[in-house]
Amino acid sequence: MTPERTDTGSLVTVMSDTVIIVVPVDAPVTVALNRDRLVDAMETQAAIGGTDDGGLHRLALSDEDKAVRDWFVEQLRALDLTVRVDAFGNVFGRRSGTDPDASPVLIGSHLDSQPNGGIYDGQLGVVAALELLRTLDDEDAETAHPIEIVNWTNEEGSRFQPGLQGSGVWSGEFDLETEYDRTDRDGVRLLDELERIGYRGDAPVEPAEPYEAYFELHIEQGPYLDESENDVGVVTGVVGLSWGEVTFTGEANHAGSTPMHLRHDASVPAAELLAHIRRLPGRLGERTVATVGSVGVTPDSINIIPETATVTWDVRDPTDEVVDRAVDRLSSEAEAAANREGVECEIEETARTRSAEFDDRCVETVQDVADEFGYESMRLLSGGNHDASHVNEVCDTAMVFAVSEGGKSHTPEEFTSWDDCYRAANTVANAVLATATSTAD
Amino acid sequence: MTPERTDTGSLVTVMSDTVIIVVPVDAPVTVALNRDRLVDAMETQAAIGGTDDGGLHRLALSDEDKAVRDWFVEQLRALDLTVRVDAFGNVFGRRSGTDPDASPVLIGSHLDSQPNGGIYDGQLGVVAALELLRTLDDEDAETAHPIEIVNWTNEEGSRFQPGLQGSGVWSGEFDLETEYDRTDRDGVRLLDELERIGYRGDAPVEPAEPYEAYFELHIEQGPYLDESENDVGVVTGVVGLSWGEVTFTGEANHAGSTPMHLRHDASVPAAELLAHIRRLPGRLGERTVATVGSVGVTPDSINIIPETATVTWDVRDPTDEVVDRAVDRLSSEAEAAANREGVECEIEETARTRSAEFDDRCVETVQDVADEFGYESMRLLSGGNHDASHVNEVCDTAMVFAVSEGGKSHTPEEFTSWDDCYRAANTVANAVLATATSTAD
Repeated sequence: MTPERTDTGSLVTVMSDTVIIVVPVDAPVTVALNRDRLVDAMETQAAIGGTDDGGLHRLALSDEDKAVRDWFVEQLRALDLTVRVDAFGNVFGRRSGTDPDASPVLIGSHLDSQPNGGIYDGQLGVVAALELLRTLDDEDAETAHPIEIVNWTNEEGSRFQPGLQGSGVWSGEFDLETEYDRTDRDGVRLLDELERIGYRGDAPVEPAEPYEAYFELHIEQGPYLDESENDVGVVTGVVGLSWGEVTFTGEANHAGSTPMHLRHDASVPAAELLAHIRRLPGRLGERTVATVGSVGVTPDSINIIPETATVTWDVRDPTDEVVDRAVDRLSSEAEAAANREGVECEIEETARTRSAEFDDRCVETVQDVADEFGYESMRLLSGGNHDASHVNEVCDTAMVFAVSEGGKSHTPEEFTSWDDCYRAANTVANAVLATATSTAD
Repeated sequence: MTPERTDTGSLVTVMSDTVIIVVPVDAPVTVALNRDRLVDAMETQAAIGGTDDGGLHRLALSDEDKAVRDWFVEQLRALDLTVRVDAFGNVFGRRSGTDPDASPVLIGSHLDSQPNGGIYDGQLGVVAALELLRTLDDEDAETAHPIEIVNWTNEEGSRFQPGLQGSGVWSGEFDLETEYDRTDRDGVRLLDELERIGYRGDAPVEPAEPYEAYFELHIEQGPYLDESENDVGVVTGVVGLSWGEVTFTGEANHAGSTPMHLRHDASVPAAELLAHIRRLPGRLGERTVATVGSVGVTPDSINIIPETATVTWDVRDPTDEVVDRAVDRLSSEAEAAANREGVECEIEETARTRSAEFDDRCVETVQDVADEFGYESMRLLSGGNHDASHVNEVCDTAMVFAVSEGGKSHTPEEFTSWDDCYRAANTVANAVLATATSTAD
């Protein structure tokens, strides 16, 4: 199949179901991905740790995570990419560029999932990156800049906290040894699991060289694109976030024979704190969200007064000062509630991500591609936190959001139509391609 | 060692550390138990499933429960008792009486424990019963009525709900097949566990014949005896109890990107219900207690809005109508809170025990024994529920309470001094003996 030169000067190759347009280096470059192959790869990854109800259960560093990593590396090797695994398990595959001085453009996301999560989430971002490289290979297309694909370790932060861990260490925001020592609920150490599944690589956990840019496609995980009937989201930044945990410690005692006035029931301040956290939004910033995702008591028996009660918080706002104020307020309330019940209280912030503002040039590149493809788009601030927040500290960054039907996320009901997957994949792929074919500044 | 007749006509045997006084059948009969042997048996049972912090973890029908049952049966056989295991795993050992027409006097309690509970609880009641039979054997003492010792299956209701299960089926309050089908949190069926540990016996789960009376020794699990510096408690009845569970079902969604007004967060009504349940005491009866011992959410991840939240209740009051009103109120609040958040709500009462008033004659027998031994005593209503509540439906019943230091219960810090154990054991043993030696009414 020989490329034909069109009368606009582009090289056009028509394949069975793909149109590839490679234009001269000084003109915009666009590729249309292979929709069937994209869907096929999405279905393949979704089957690894797939649940009966169409969801995905692929916790970081589990056997399922190992299996999907093995599949991913196999795909990279099939593309003759230089595969690099760093000492925190982040997996990179590099496709060379023609300009030896041009720094690489990074594209990717993560393959791990929440417990019983959905199949799209960040997985779509990795699969779209893979499909970009396959499409470029199909056409023997060259780029001035190398293109590097990445799968970050433990984005979800569900089994091991905090999340965004691989990108956090890589970007220098997190300390490697501290993160190695994290344990899951069964006391299993992260480093041990990393070694067990064979993904503690040799490469240092840091940017090997300056990066030209990073692009990440992720599903929106919110309702705005769906409600506004847009095709793709052009993400301009990520809200600030605080995660933490409050543990109340009172006294276990018999539920029947302990008079009310002699109780030190850890569940009582926990419930009060939960209600307080729920009331934070609407009192601070206009776009504050606050969630208690995890609640538990011990000994957790119907007729024993709880000795301990744990409540987590997840607070986000576009303005970091609002997040600060929210954490101050909930901490005060935790202490006040503990005092009222006569129990102890321990407050720990387990993760903090400052709000991120993405690079104008990268955001405009995404916007231009969406416009060029004729996709309806809107600009969005991400409420969810992403590896892109960390990478943004290292190099220019932008994100593309795919439509999440009904905004559902982290549940088997999460859904993005294949058409929406394809549109978003084309957008991120071509933003990368545009950046990788641009001449050095 | 030969008994000597004293000048009051009693037979007195002096052993190394035991004084046994056997008096003629028409006079009150008193035995002093062997304190060292009682302590020794307490320590032996406490080691089976004992925890490092001095507590006891011996959940119903677990391997530890099997081990303690095996030990118990061995002790019964060593006493040449007729051992009977019924089809629900209740274990009986009968010592014959001299009067063929006299109905048996039952004494016992339970050997299972809460998760990380204490070593005294009901265990003391079984060990005291054992020590009574050993003491009677030492002296070849005879009683008109047979004396039967019992270990009830699953009193605690921690692993399998409801509690008081063995006595509940035996007394006809619970349905055998329904209770067989109960499952623990891992979905393991009760009947399967009963068979696995080899304690599904052949005897029908019912009183084989009329019983003369039932006496049960248990630790108080409350602070009243300790605070009032009494030696033993004479229990006149048990408060009414309701156990239940409310499950709220909303929608799992991403904690960052789901706007507050689109949430259906199951944890919010759960917290409101918990706070409401806490406020029930002080609004209904004078002695109402209400507890939420178990709280949980799914998927239980820091950045996912909970889809389900479960809250248990435990409400008790001496007056059954107050318990009824409490359940009505918390049910209304659960529904109202669910409506406010736009989530579903399922309310299930899992156990209900009407308040029990013990038999005057039995209570007076306990009081007389305490007085005779010179023990300081007080009359109490039990806030904790006991197998005695069920047995009270079948035959005359009373209970003895041992001092609980600080009222602590269902925790490794639970403590009753050996002196207090001994005093309470002597009290229940001699109440049984007095009843078993009395002539038929």
